Amino acid sequence: MIRRLGVVGLGLLGGSVAKAARAASLAQEIVGVGRSMASLEPALRQGAVDRVTTDLDEGLQGADMIVLATPVATLERQLPQIWRAAHAQALVTDVGSAKAGIVRAAEALAATRPLDFVGSHPMAGSNLAGFAVARPDLFQGATVILTPTDRTSPDAVKRVTGFWEALGGRVTVMDPATHDRAVAAISHLPHFVVDALVAAVVDMDPKFLEVAARGFKDTTRIAASDPVVWREIFQQNREALGEALGVFRRALTSLERVLDSNDNAAIEEVLERIRKTRADLG
Amino acid sequence: MIRRLGVVGLGLLGGSVAKAARAASLAQEIVGVGRSMASLEPALRQGAVDRVTTDLDEGLQGADMIVLATPVATLERQLPQIWRAAHAQALVTDVGSAKAGIVRAAEALAATRPLDFVGSHPMAGSNLAGFAVARPDLFQGATVILTPTDRTSPDAVKRVTGFWEALGGRVTVMDPATHDRAVAAISHLPHFVVDALVAAVVDMDPKFLEVAARGFKDTTRIAASDPVVWREIFQQNREALGEALGVFRRALTSLERVLDSNDNAAIEEVLERIRKTRADLG
Repeated sequence: MIRRLGVVGLGLLGGSVAKAARAASLAQEIVGVGRSMASLEPALRQGAVDRVTTDLDEGLQGADMIVLATPVATLERQLPQIWRAAHAQALVTDVGSAKAGIVRAAEALAATRPLDFVGSHPMAGSNLAGFAVARPDLFQGATVILTPTDRTSPDAVKRVTGFWEALGGRVTVMDPATHDRAVAAISHLPHFVVDALVAAVVDMDPKFLEVAARGFKDTTRIAASDPVVWREIFQQNREALGEALGVFRRALTSLERVLDSNDNAAIEEVLERIRKTRADLG
Repeated sequence: MIRRLGVVGLGLLGGSVAKAARAASLAQEIVGVGRSMASLEPALRQGAVDRVTTDLDEGLQGADMIVLATPVATLERQLPQIWRAAHAQALVTDVGSAKAGIVRAAEALAATRPLDFVGSHPMAGSNLAGFAVARPDLFQGATVILTPTDRTSPDAVKRVTGFWEALGGRVTVMDPATHDRAVAAISHLPHFVVDALVAAVVDMDPKFLEVAARGFKDTTRIAASDPVVWREIFQQNREALGEALGVFRRALTSLERVLDSNDNAAIEEVLERIRKTRADLG
């Protein structure tokens, strides 16, 4: 049982952490920290949190569990202050979608003041953002990747695992660099490619969009995402995204080359391998 | 009222035409033509058609409305025989997803024997294929593109429009070349790109697929499509697909360049324009 849960940033993810923790009676008290009282007010009114504040030091005081859910760029800026404000026994985790940078920053701070930090990335999201779309069941069945290093205490990993599992998540562990390459591949690359796809159709002729059917809409759904959130994600994971884009460009050229071979059996073999890979995902 | 409706090819589209026409009581008699009796038997048993045959001449005899629903490549091969077998007063349409080639072939045949042909492309599909997934409501609300030319009789266009509308479709008209560029942009390019995306993730590390979430699954759903159907579509519309791939590659490079400018406002402006374009599609 958590005595006091501090959630910094009450957007889709932070708000959902608060709502899910409340629904699971995981903490005696939940404190929400945000940029403005106006943005925090709905969480207080709905009972997702017990107290709200715009003061980071005040919000983290006495919290034994701290979830950092501000955008990645903001989080890196806030981290030194969070590190000073947190209780010595506090367990700290985050929800950022790029992990190498934040884990590196946390370990640099831990060298001066030891504090339990485990990077988390709940693979739950939406193309929408903000507390208004936060849901207590957002993490139900969602994969949550933890990114401990050899400097992370095994007990902290165990407790963070228990936390996410209590919210319905399925926890898996990766080192930070592998995590960043994996999410570049299955999240950031698809996002970037689909953004370019929408831009390309507009470049060809915006009128073509009028005959777009369900296939196009499903494929490009994630292009309707918050521009600030995704600008930051692309920037934070730029290196792994760049590597993924290189592999993607080569895959595109290779597929085009197979098509131009006019070797029907070879084309169908490649398409069948792709079909099966995707179908196996369910 | 159609006296005899001949449907050539009882896969997803042809089977759905038969089922929808039956449900709407659009024809006194529906005849299904296919490659093998075994493949035709389920349509007969379910009452979607009244008669089945593997003989094209027999199947088209006396049909006043003919829907050609074999794969595009097969269709181009069959067209001369269909042209000879069809009744002089028959109205012929197809469901192919590339139109310039088939319309050209039909007009060449019409020069020797006049016959009413209007190219159709119902934008309804599935990643699945075959009669087993055919549905009477497949065309309900679906866009159907007709591709008449200046040689097509306005009355034939009117009657084909009425046919698709009776099946629930929303008809729109384009010339064959514009149609092929439009579907290259909003259907064939997305398919090809998403195929390359799945291939790229496998190239990086197949294990990365284990953490794929809903966004990846939605984006790549169309990659789980029939390899033969899509091999033929890519080949049939190769020229327009090639043009679309060129525009896409430039859009990808341009997006990467904006990202690397590190001009946050410029990046967000581009992403916001993409977000709005996609969101407006519903």
